[in-house]
Amino acid sequence: MITVAIIGFGNVGKHLYEAFSISENCEVVAVFSRNQARFQNLTEIPIVPKLDELPEAAVTIIAVADDAIAEVSETLPERNGLVVHTSGNTPIKAIADTHRRGVFYPLQSFSKRPVIFKEIPICLEAEQKDDYEVLASLASKLSDRVFNIDSTTRAQLHLAAVFANNFVNHLYQVSEKLLSKNDLDFSLLQPLIFETAQRLSEMSPSEAQTGPAIRGDEKTIKKQLHLLEGTAFQSLYQQLTESIAQTHGKKL
Amino acid sequence: MITVAIIGFGNVGKHLYEAFSISENCEVVAVFSRNQARFQNLTEIPIVPKLDELPEAAVTIIAVADDAIAEVSETLPERNGLVVHTSGNTPIKAIADTHRRGVFYPLQSFSKRPVIFKEIPICLEAEQKDDYEVLASLASKLSDRVFNIDSTTRAQLHLAAVFANNFVNHLYQVSEKLLSKNDLDFSLLQPLIFETAQRLSEMSPSEAQTGPAIRGDEKTIKKQLHLLEGTAFQSLYQQLTESIAQTHGKKL
Repeated sequence: MITVAIIGFGNVGKHLYEAFSISENCEVVAVFSRNQARFQNLTEIPIVPKLDELPEAAVTIIAVADDAIAEVSETLPERNGLVVHTSGNTPIKAIADTHRRGVFYPLQSFSKRPVIFKEIPICLEAEQKDDYEVLASLASKLSDRVFNIDSTTRAQLHLAAVFANNFVNHLYQVSEKLLSKNDLDFSLLQPLIFETAQRLSEMSPSEAQTGPAIRGDEKTIKKQLHLLEGTAFQSLYQQLTESIAQTHGKKL
Repeated sequence: MITVAIIGFGNVGKHLYEAFSISENCEVVAVFSRNQARFQNLTEIPIVPKLDELPEAAVTIIAVADDAIAEVSETLPERNGLVVHTSGNTPIKAIADTHRRGVFYPLQSFSKRPVIFKEIPICLEAEQKDDYEVLASLASKLSDRVFNIDSTTRAQLHLAAVFANNFVNHLYQVSEKLLSKNDLDFSLLQPLIFETAQRLSEMSPSEAQTGPAIRGDEKTIKKQLHLLEGTAFQSLYQQLTESIAQTHGKKL
């Protein structure tokens, strides 16, 4: 049995709580949340309102905003167990060195939607071999994809995720804005968006690339730049087009 | 029974052929392909090697590259039925005016992967009301989502699709390159990519946007720009970040 305490009950904290709660040989001893009142009716969750009331656990998971990790870890009284954060973008050393520290980074974007934890890569880091073993054992209760990844590599991985998630989502928003200017509904693009994402299970993005930039089709590019005249997205179109051409060794 | 002839047997032509073949009250009378030899063993497909051998059909679908539509339509002898193209980016008038012309644009990216035609928006255009009725009747045999969209609006729709497909796929390729520089496998990002696309069935991209740009988190942005130093993707990061900030009314 591995015991877990969770600090923070936002999307990451909640999903971890739920996943651990249904895992075998694993027990969430308590959750700390500043918004205790919001959760007081959910009696099955052992919520504590003060950090120094958090019971001991083999692993204490700090699931708060990146820029609050250092402060929370400093406020947290010394503990017998490991203290880890869940951030892709934050070095292990952001946790105060009064703790045996580690990282437990599930590579997924958590919202209120359910997730399939078994498929989510969990990227671990610890300073001691024994501590790593504990984290690996805990992570394997949630996911089949557990990796040992240091802080430097994790920052690069997180950056790649920014392109594949934040930036991709922004392009969806650009599409939505172009459509709504023409009284068209965003749902028109859903099968296309879905196919573009799913295709990657069968081919690499490099193989999947299509469009005017990779064909060197300057006529289409010119026409589309013209359609974007006066919008904020013309220079974005230009830059993405140049980046595609450059990546595929085309000259435009 | 609506009869169909298809010109071109690339990904679009093939998917249309297959979809019509299994639809009721619909018959593909012939397919024209320049590469007839490649398909000659597929005896169930009525392939013809010359445009003037193409039998009459209620609807003749030109499913060739955008810049070949005009020439193919000029070479095609006059016909009793309608002649349509399948391009998002090409006006109806690209088809020679010797024909009763129209557009039959399925809004999807076709590869060798199977598709679910029922969900794919099919955008139609015709110059005569009667012709539109024929196209609408044909399209409704494939899909539940049939729309009347003129050439101007279709060009805008196609441009939105470029952002949601070509440009998104390029961002996936950027992610792949960042990962491979760090000996990390692209499959690490698959659950994230999938979630980012699927989420849009429940919330708009505007609501789904996360990340440093929308938080106004300049520290993280600086750090990530630094990680990209010396790569071709630093300016792309900058431009996308600025575009997110601008779209959400943030100043960086």
